[in-house]
Amino acid sequence: MRAVDLIQKKKEGKSHTQEEIKFLVENYTKGNIEDYQMSAWLMAVCFQGLNDEETAYLTQAFVESGDILDFSKISSNIADKHSTGGVGDKVTLALIPILAQLDVYTAKLSGRGLGFTGGTIDKLEAIPNFKTELTNEEFFKQISDIKVAISSQSPNLTPADGKIYALRDVTATVDNKSLICASVVSKKIASGANSIVLDVKYGSGAFLKTPQEARELGDLMIKTGKLLNRNIDVVISSMEQPLGFSVGNSLEVIEALEFLKGNYKEDLYEITLELAIKTLLNCKKATTKEEAKAMVDLVIKNGSALNKFKEIIAHQKGNTEVIEDYSLFEIGKNKTEIKANKDGYISKLIALDVAHAAKLLGAGRDKKSDSIDFGAGIILNKKIGDKVQKDDVVMELYYNDVSQTKLNDSIKIAQSSFEIQEEEFEKPKLIY
Amino acid sequence: MRAVDLIQKKKEGKSHTQEEIKFLVENYTKGNIEDYQMSAWLMAVCFQGLNDEETAYLTQAFVESGDILDFSKISSNIADKHSTGGVGDKVTLALIPILAQLDVYTAKLSGRGLGFTGGTIDKLEAIPNFKTELTNEEFFKQISDIKVAISSQSPNLTPADGKIYALRDVTATVDNKSLICASVVSKKIASGANSIVLDVKYGSGAFLKTPQEARELGDLMIKTGKLLNRNIDVVISSMEQPLGFSVGNSLEVIEALEFLKGNYKEDLYEITLELAIKTLLNCKKATTKEEAKAMVDLVIKNGSALNKFKEIIAHQKGNTEVIEDYSLFEIGKNKTEIKANKDGYISKLIALDVAHAAKLLGAGRDKKSDSIDFGAGIILNKKIGDKVQKDDVVMELYYNDVSQTKLNDSIKIAQSSFEIQEEEFEKPKLIY
Repeated sequence: MRAVDLIQKKKEGKSHTQEEIKFLVENYTKGNIEDYQMSAWLMAVCFQGLNDEETAYLTQAFVESGDILDFSKISSNIADKHSTGGVGDKVTLALIPILAQLDVYTAKLSGRGLGFTGGTIDKLEAIPNFKTELTNEEFFKQISDIKVAISSQSPNLTPADGKIYALRDVTATVDNKSLICASVVSKKIASGANSIVLDVKYGSGAFLKTPQEARELGDLMIKTGKLLNRNIDVVISSMEQPLGFSVGNSLEVIEALEFLKGNYKEDLYEITLELAIKTLLNCKKATTKEEAKAMVDLVIKNGSALNKFKEIIAHQKGNTEVIEDYSLFEIGKNKTEIKANKDGYISKLIALDVAHAAKLLGAGRDKKSDSIDFGAGIILNKKIGDKVQKDDVVMELYYNDVSQTKLNDSIKIAQSSFEIQEEEFEKPKLIY
Repeated sequence: MRAVDLIQKKKEGKSHTQEEIKFLVENYTKGNIEDYQMSAWLMAVCFQGLNDEETAYLTQAFVESGDILDFSKISSNIADKHSTGGVGDKVTLALIPILAQLDVYTAKLSGRGLGFTGGTIDKLEAIPNFKTELTNEEFFKQISDIKVAISSQSPNLTPADGKIYALRDVTATVDNKSLICASVVSKKIASGANSIVLDVKYGSGAFLKTPQEARELGDLMIKTGKLLNRNIDVVISSMEQPLGFSVGNSLEVIEALEFLKGNYKEDLYEITLELAIKTLLNCKKATTKEEAKAMVDLVIKNGSALNKFKEIIAHQKGNTEVIEDYSLFEIGKNKTEIKANKDGYISKLIALDVAHAAKLLGAGRDKKSDSIDFGAGIILNKKIGDKVQKDDVVMELYYNDVSQTKLNDSIKIAQSSFEIQEEEFEKPKLIY
C-alpha cells in the first residue's frame, strides 16, 4: 500500500477500506507518511468526504494510536460529556457534580482553551491550589472513591488525532464533519467512556454556523458511536449569545457554584438539565425524562450536588472555602460598565464579540504558551430578549493590568457586541 | 498574507491575485511555506481549478523563481519545441536539424526520462561521446555558431516548478491542466524561447486520455502564451500507438537519422512536418503552409538537414561516424521476435504496453539513479492498420543481460500489446 495511491483514491471520490484508513493513520503517527501527503489527503477528504464507515474507521484508528483507559474494574458504565466549544460554557462544572451525586461515574479529561476564553482545566485552576494534573493512579483512585475526577488530558491519548489536528489547523482542513467527529469521539472513547453525551453548538459563537450543520455532525457522531459500540447521544444547542451570565475563568466557576446553589440563568439550567437527563437515561439511572429531571432538581435543591463539587475540590487539593467566600477568587481589580444607549430589548448579543472582548482583557490566550488572567472577564447583566432602559448596565468588564490599547479595543468590541430594538419579541430557542 | 488563508481561499473556489500566487511560489521556493501547506493548496487547485489569469500568474512566478536565459544578442526570435511525452517520440531529434538548417535559432534544453523510455538527453547519449552537459558559455556559443544546441536542463531554471513537481508526484496532484501548463510553459519561457510549439499528446500512451482533454490543455497553453507575450502554438496528436518504428535509445537515434535520409514511417513525418510548419510560420520564415512544407521537404531531400545533425554531433563532441555506420551504436546482443498468431490487420498496438516491455529490457528507468541500457529496445515492424499474416514478425525485442523473469515479463507484455482483427479498416488519424 502506498500513501500516494490512497490520496488518489480519495481524490477520485472512492471509499477507503478499514485497512487503508488504519495504514494512513498508523504510518502517519509513526512518521512513515509525510505531513505533505497527509495534508493532501485531508484536503481531498474536505472535498470528497468520508462515509459513515470510513468515519468510524478513522475514529477507531485514532483510538488505537495511543493508550486506552480501562475503568472496567471500577464500573461497567463510565459517562463522559463533551461540548464542541462555546463562549461562557461552564456546563461541565455544573453537570459533573450532579451526575456523580446521582451515582454516574465520570472520568473527565479536559483541555485548556485556545482562542476564546479558557477551557475547563483553565477554569478549575481559577480555584486556588486546585490540582488539574493527576497521575493515572490518582485519577483512577479518585473515581473509585468519589465517582468523579477531572484531569488535564494525557499526551498519550489519541496521539494521531493530536498530530493530525495540528496539521489541519495550518492547512485549512479543519471544517470537515467526519474529521471533527473522529477527533471528538476518539478522545472520549480512548478516555474510557462508553456512555457519551455531546453538546454540539451552532451559531455565530461556534464553528458550525447553522442548526442543520450541527444536526449533521450530531447524527454522524451518533452513527459512529453505534458502529463502534458506544452509547452516544447528542444535544444541539445555540451559541448565538454566550451561555449564562459570565465569561472568564474565575467568574465562570462562581457562576457554576451559584448554579449548584440554585441561582442560575435559565439557559445554563436548560442545557445542563438536558445533558443530565440524556446521561441518566443512557446509564439507566432513570427510566423517564420526568424521573431524571426530578432527580437533578433534587440534588440541586438539597445541596448535595454542591457538596459533591466541594468533595471534588477537596480531593484535588483545591481550597474548598471558595464555595462560601468568592473573594478568595482572583477577580479583576478594575471594572468598566457598558451601558445601553436607548430603551428597548436586547436583540443581538454576539458570542464571538463578547469572547473577543474578554480575551483582550486577559481571559484567553492566542498561543499555548500565553498565560491567562483568571480574574479577567465579563459579567452579562442582560441577555437576548431582556428589557433595558437607557443607561442600564448591560455588561461589566473586569480586568487587571492591561494595556490602554487592548482595553480600548475591548470596550469598543463590547459596545458593538449587542443591539437594542424597540419592539418586544420572543426569546430564541436554546436547544434545537 | 498567510499561506493558510490562501489555501482556504482556493478551497472555497475563489480566485487568487497575482500577488497571492507570487507570495505562495516565492515563499515555498525559499522554504518559508512548508510542503504540507503547498500540497494542501495543490489539492484544492485540483478540485477548484485556476482560471486563465491565475495560470499565467503561476507560470510567471515559476519563471521568476530562477534564471532566465537571454539570447537577444544572438537573435530576436528563439524557437523551442516541447512534447508532453509519449512512447517512441524522437521528434526533437528529427525536427531540430531541419529548423536550424532553415535559419531558425533553437536553444533546446531537454530532460532525462522517467517511467517510459529515455528522454531526449538519454537518446543523444546513445551517440558515443556525445556531450549533453554544456556550460552556459558553450551553449550560447554553439547557438551563435550553428543556430542550435541541445543541453540537459540547468538546475537553476524554474526551481519553483522543480520543487513543486516533486511534491505533486507524491501527493496525487499531477493531473491538473493549469499545473501542467505552468510547468511546461514556464520552462520554455525561462530557457529564452519566444516562439514555442507544443505537441500535446493524448491516448493510452499519454497522461491525457482523450483529444478533448489535450485540446483543453493546448488552448490553455496558447492563452497563457498570449497573457505572457509569447508566441505559443499547439499540435494535438494521438499517442494510442508508439510513434515511428522504434522504441529505445540507440534505435530511436537511428530512426531519426533514417528520417533525415528520407526513410521514415508516415506518422513520424506527419508530426515532424506539422511542428516544423507551425514553427516556420511563427518565426516568419515562411508565409504559407505550402511554402513551409516545401522548405522542409527540400532540406530532407538534399541532405542538408542530415548534415546539420552531423554538425550538432561534431560540436557536441559525439562520434559523427555513427551517421553512416550504425554498428557504432550499442545495440542489444540478443533478439526475440514476437509473431502474429493469425492473419488479419493490426487493430491495437498499446503504446504504454510497448513502453513497459521496452523498460523491462533496460530501455527506461524507475528512479533517477537507475542506469539505462542504450542498446535495449523494440523495433515495430507493423503498426495499426497494417496487414499481417500468421507468423509474420510484428516486433523485435533487443536486449543485453536481463534477468529471465524480466525478459519473460517483457515478452508476455509485448505479445499482448497488440491485437489482430480480420476486417480491414481505416487507419486512425495522428493529428487531431
